[in-house]
Amino acid sequence: MNHQHTYEGAAAGRQPVVGMVGAGQLARMTAAAAVGLGIRFRVLAAAADESAAQVVADTVFGDYRSTDDLMAFAAGCDVITFDHEHVPQAQLAALEQAGHVVWPSAAALRFTQDKLAMRGRLTELGVPCPRVEPVESVADVVAFAGSAGSVGSAGWPVVLKAVSGGYDGRGVWVCDDAAAVAEVLAHGLPVFAEEYVPFERELAILVARSPSGHGVAYPVVESVQRDGICVEVLAPAPRLSAGTAVAVQRLGLELARDLDVIGLLAVELFETRHGEVLVNELAMRPHNTGHWTIEGARTSQFEQHLRAILNWPLGSPAMAAPTAVMANVLGATDPDLHGKLNHVLAADTALKVQLYGKPVRPGRKVGHVTALGTDLASLRDRAARASNYLATGSEEPAAEPAAGAGRPL
Amino acid sequence: MNHQHTYEGAAAGRQPVVGMVGAGQLARMTAAAAVGLGIRFRVLAAAADESAAQVVADTVFGDYRSTDDLMAFAAGCDVITFDHEHVPQAQLAALEQAGHVVWPSAAALRFTQDKLAMRGRLTELGVPCPRVEPVESVADVVAFAGSAGSVGSAGWPVVLKAVSGGYDGRGVWVCDDAAAVAEVLAHGLPVFAEEYVPFERELAILVARSPSGHGVAYPVVESVQRDGICVEVLAPAPRLSAGTAVAVQRLGLELARDLDVIGLLAVELFETRHGEVLVNELAMRPHNTGHWTIEGARTSQFEQHLRAILNWPLGSPAMAAPTAVMANVLGATDPDLHGKLNHVLAADTALKVQLYGKPVRPGRKVGHVTALGTDLASLRDRAARASNYLATGSEEPAAEPAAGAGRPL
Repeated sequence: MNHQHTYEGAAAGRQPVVGMVGAGQLARMTAAAAVGLGIRFRVLAAAADESAAQVVADTVFGDYRSTDDLMAFAAGCDVITFDHEHVPQAQLAALEQAGHVVWPSAAALRFTQDKLAMRGRLTELGVPCPRVEPVESVADVVAFAGSAGSVGSAGWPVVLKAVSGGYDGRGVWVCDDAAAVAEVLAHGLPVFAEEYVPFERELAILVARSPSGHGVAYPVVESVQRDGICVEVLAPAPRLSAGTAVAVQRLGLELARDLDVIGLLAVELFETRHGEVLVNELAMRPHNTGHWTIEGARTSQFEQHLRAILNWPLGSPAMAAPTAVMANVLGATDPDLHGKLNHVLAADTALKVQLYGKPVRPGRKVGHVTALGTDLASLRDRAARASNYLATGSEEPAAEPAAGAGRPL
Repeated sequence: MNHQHTYEGAAAGRQPVVGMVGAGQLARMTAAAAVGLGIRFRVLAAAADESAAQVVADTVFGDYRSTDDLMAFAAGCDVITFDHEHVPQAQLAALEQAGHVVWPSAAALRFTQDKLAMRGRLTELGVPCPRVEPVESVADVVAFAGSAGSVGSAGWPVVLKAVSGGYDGRGVWVCDDAAAVAEVLAHGLPVFAEEYVPFERELAILVARSPSGHGVAYPVVESVQRDGICVEVLAPAPRLSAGTAVAVQRLGLELARDLDVIGLLAVELFETRHGEVLVNELAMRPHNTGHWTIEGARTSQFEQHLRAILNWPLGSPAMAAPTAVMANVLGATDPDLHGKLNHVLAADTALKVQLYGKPVRPGRKVGHVTALGTDLASLRDRAARASNYLATGSEEPAAEPAAGAGRPL
């Protein structure tokens, strides 16, 4: 571990400058947190109409795959961070070698860019995960399906996952047979096979870690998925034993330490019907399962990420209300969110709405709503009505998107 | 009343554009609220290093006293609003006559620009206020001192107030004798005399009103002043009878209606030892006594102002915690706030800090802190320690600034 580049600019008596590569909604919401902390916030955007570029004064245009663009962007920044995990390793290494403070580091980010490497490292660390195998052919996958699972039963379905990225916005396919496998493999994308875990629900744990090694964990949340997309987050996760909650928080903090993550680490998990918890995915940035923290926690995930990467003391992750429910606004066909906002604000004056300024496309996350209070059922109802209405003009959920190859998880 | 220019852009299916004249910390904090609501936010700034200009993507440079600059700024905005009350009436009228939606209106803003007009209108409305008289000479003030007061006893001290604006950042002087009066009058600024109210404490009520006539009132707060500057706000005001609280909220809502204020109206009040409440000052914009609402209320005053001027449904003013204490960070001699931030964040991980990005000058408001919880005494202690430390590097209050003519209120 090499932390000699830790930001020390606070002693210099000026506002720190944080550069975030990427200008999506995560950068947009981080920008709002930077305002309060007196941080100069810069984003690297591809176009002026991107979510964060609309609102950030110090927007630099460039290509996150270009070392030249990244180096120009990083000049004058005290810390570089990311709203996505797509900056290639060579470019990350170039930034670090030039002496820039880059959090999370290239070494840590690798485990979000190469899922097979992530699975390998987690297995080394003894972290419970679904069983995986590299596969190159339908025969490999059929063989994988025939071998014994560590959690689920052997056999079909088998999950195929893109080692890195995906296509059509998807990187996970649940395949019921060899024909579905062949369809996915036809894209030529490197994938691996993963046992299908018959989970009861999905959980997520969000932690933050600073260069000094301090860490904080937010309450464990439940992430409700529909068609492979997170639609709702319940904080704290209902019906979770105190023992499991503490174990999951510890898992998150230990993973952040063991993978040397600086900033946020979001860990998505499966909970099986037997109460086992398995790691599904990792992200090292503000995460959809943490959006509820803007109003629902004493320190939002966006403020926390800034505090962590600046090596400032971390903020309290305590909840600001007994229960918080976040629901994503998933685009439907009506492009006009603001035309429907009046109804939502009038119907529920205590609801919090975040709109990302993104053009509506079917299934796209274009905003979210958060309801805070005590009664989970009524909070879920309020959040669902509002998010559905913003998307479709009806308080009922939108119709399911058309299926592609395989099924979404 | 003329509301035909009410913003109707939401029906057009695009993000509304709000232009705020002025780029101080009020515009900066409004900008952060606009991010969440998907509002395009534009500020008119004098220089790139102003508080809001540092963070707002759509910053336009110009002079708020120039009709040309204001008209260019307003082009493309759905609503024009203000972070100060200094735009002259002629320029406000020009904007309105050109068809721009201007909230609050020129007619309403006049009552924040001409305090004698405000006092006259409030007296017409039967609102309890200190007795005032226009004065032009020391003899006028001496005669005023000799006449009977409506609340306090007649005689000295007498308060002199600038009719509009002030100098050296001050517009209020408490004069103990004719010599002090002569010193204030020597500046040639139009002033009026006001009876000195021997108040027990200062209260404030913040309300919002939309063009449709809907209004909401926040809880009544206590504003603690030192040397004429607000140093601390306690929400809700402690030891206030429920009857007085409701009467003050009603007063705020009725004043907003009677003065036809659209957006926020902050009313500063004196509470006498007999429990009488008198109106001291008005502001028609986000106000220092409402900063606690960022984390302490379900809807912040900044979000509320935007919702009101856009004629959106107003948000719940309910408190997000039983008690909130806000303390201003008043600049001392050390220019480096961020160098002291680590201590404050480490000492109190649940404290919320807002820094405005302004150069430190003695007595200048450069940030604030907010503590949320239940026990007022401990919240005040936390807020005071943090704000003092950020200002001076010590948890004790800063020394008093040097006195000028008269005494501050």
